[in-house]
Amino acid sequence: MAMKQVARSAFKAVANSGSSSVLTRQLHASPGSKKIVGVFYKANEYFTKNPNFVGCVEGALGLRQWLESQGHQYIVTDDKDGPNCELDKHIPDLHVLISTPFHPAYVTAERIKKAKNLQLLLTAGIGSDHVDLKAAAEAGLTVAEITGSNVVSVAEDELMRILILVRNFLPGHHQVINGDWNVAGIAYRAYDLEGKTVGTIGAGRIGKLLLQRLKPFNCNLLYHDRIKMDPELEKEIGAKYEEDLDIMLPKCDIIVVNMPLTEKTRGMFDKDRIAKLKKGVLIVNNARGAIMDTQAVADACASGHIAGYSGDVWYPQPAPKDHPWRYMPNQAMTPHISGTTIDAQLRYAAGVKDMLERYFKGEEFPAQNYIVKEGELAPQYR
Amino acid sequence: MAMKQVARSAFKAVANSGSSSVLTRQLHASPGSKKIVGVFYKANEYFTKNPNFVGCVEGALGLRQWLESQGHQYIVTDDKDGPNCELDKHIPDLHVLISTPFHPAYVTAERIKKAKNLQLLLTAGIGSDHVDLKAAAEAGLTVAEITGSNVVSVAEDELMRILILVRNFLPGHHQVINGDWNVAGIAYRAYDLEGKTVGTIGAGRIGKLLLQRLKPFNCNLLYHDRIKMDPELEKEIGAKYEEDLDIMLPKCDIIVVNMPLTEKTRGMFDKDRIAKLKKGVLIVNNARGAIMDTQAVADACASGHIAGYSGDVWYPQPAPKDHPWRYMPNQAMTPHISGTTIDAQLRYAAGVKDMLERYFKGEEFPAQNYIVKEGELAPQYR
Repeated sequence: MAMKQVARSAFKAVANSGSSSVLTRQLHASPGSKKIVGVFYKANEYFTKNPNFVGCVEGALGLRQWLESQGHQYIVTDDKDGPNCELDKHIPDLHVLISTPFHPAYVTAERIKKAKNLQLLLTAGIGSDHVDLKAAAEAGLTVAEITGSNVVSVAEDELMRILILVRNFLPGHHQVINGDWNVAGIAYRAYDLEGKTVGTIGAGRIGKLLLQRLKPFNCNLLYHDRIKMDPELEKEIGAKYEEDLDIMLPKCDIIVVNMPLTEKTRGMFDKDRIAKLKKGVLIVNNARGAIMDTQAVADACASGHIAGYSGDVWYPQPAPKDHPWRYMPNQAMTPHISGTTIDAQLRYAAGVKDMLERYFKGEEFPAQNYIVKEGELAPQYR
Repeated sequence: MAMKQVARSAFKAVANSGSSSVLTRQLHASPGSKKIVGVFYKANEYFTKNPNFVGCVEGALGLRQWLESQGHQYIVTDDKDGPNCELDKHIPDLHVLISTPFHPAYVTAERIKKAKNLQLLLTAGIGSDHVDLKAAAEAGLTVAEITGSNVVSVAEDELMRILILVRNFLPGHHQVINGDWNVAGIAYRAYDLEGKTVGTIGAGRIGKLLLQRLKPFNCNLLYHDRIKMDPELEKEIGAKYEEDLDIMLPKCDIIVVNMPLTEKTRGMFDKDRIAKLKKGVLIVNNARGAIMDTQAVADACASGHIAGYSGDVWYPQPAPKDHPWRYMPNQAMTPHISGTTIDAQLRYAAGVKDMLERYFKGEEFPAQNYIVKEGELAPQYR
């Protein structure tokens, strides 16, 4: 009975912090109607263009009929920031908040404090850094993701971005749409991926899938992680373990970031660390924008020290019009999209339904899905 | 002695065609100074930006010192078309013409007729359709490529283009540079590659390398070719043979073109064949532009029957400013670049040097490099 365990632990955590607010909360899945709020991006005219487009406000993860037929209330919105936003109206009485990394509902300590009925925070996708996890743990909340729902989607996207940078795709495409033709202007900095050194920081689910897809490209593959793979898997994947990140990084022609945003990783690619990278390094970051020092990346792209930067993650999201990464040279950026392909949406919608079913029944979630459980953070977030 | 064999065969071929011009030609590698002409794209300001940029006019494949030290004359130009172009000035007395598919010197029957000393046509790269091969065979010329020099480069580029189309990369990137943020406008037609059906027409060197790189993506892989792979290789690559092209094509979510341009393949993707493809099909063509009916492709992109088209080959090249593929929706085109990465340039420059050395010594070329030998076309061009 997962939620009952959470309740006990929460009591302890909050009791330790000296607050008594926990006594007014129902932290287990009690019977009866729940108020569930989903925060997703809005599709507008795009919604009707694809019957499988479930990941938007209009699609509502395909859960409305199912939830309402069981007597639950289901509010869905994209209005998540600023005073009087729709989300804030529901904070005082919601039981479950579902959000995605693509249009994140920032769950601050302040919002948690106001959310007296809140029990469960679900991320439809991977990456729960939009939640103040410490505050969530202290309040006895459960935070969980649909781990695995879009790991293939993100790994494929990373390999695409590596190739786009290595092969200098975008300047060529822009020649086409501008009416130009200048092969030399592309070729002088276009390379094969074969033979290059590619290092991933983090070799969890996504990092491993990326390495497997890189294997036939005959690169020199390196990985840094908290944990070394077992030797058999390492041999199958063909990547070499680098225990010391700062020894690995200067060896890399291409660096891929595959770790969560935590207090340890926030801003870790700052001016000093970037200065130690190979001149002309390429960086792919589909993890989180705030792992980078925004201005340091923009400056290194301008100087040419970073020869190309591609990713789909920014801070904050949506990225403001004046975000420097929109304007820096040799960027191959997109909005946050890699984990929200139609295939990924169908998988994380099914995953959210499964988790809610378990929640209503008071059952455990799959172990790998927990980010905060019984006041404890998952290892990758510690 | 390759060239002597060519001479005999050429005599026969031309004698059969009723001409006597062959009697005035020197079709074997006689001792003494040769006039060699190279036609490459011009680099201008980009030349000095990379010391390995050898594939341009200024780089001249790095052969100038070596050729001139042996008493040969070496002319290099990008001026290949129109009246009074530089190439035409040298046609009457050149012995060897080197060109590339990226900036092709179109060797017509008329030019061949005027080139009384011509013995050898070398393609620095792969694909010799810029030469009138029938006319070259009848004139007893040898046509050869640097087979294998850029097959990895092209296969990598094809996989990049598949991902760019499947994942709908470009509209997202254009949002970034236009100051927008609209995840739904990308996501409604973005997919994973995993689970999709990918068919390659042609599974020669490039097609096989592509299939090997696709294998970890867990797709349904199909191939059509003149020749079925041996069962062991087929199993290793994990692709299924389709004997009948028109049975394979409607099964494909993604079609990749990997065959040479010949009289049989010219315009084979016409209006009728495209109409039989799956609605929403994606097409990648790094082979040759003229395999497509230009307007039929543009019309099918406009109607949405083709949901995305990407390639780096056009007809003619350079593509004129009003080429319809520059303006059609959902295109991910570039100028002809995939086989002229810096890595590829170094390989085909080394290959051209090796072939010239053999030519000067009257030695055979590697068998797979011949496109026209002793009046006969290589099988893929018949």
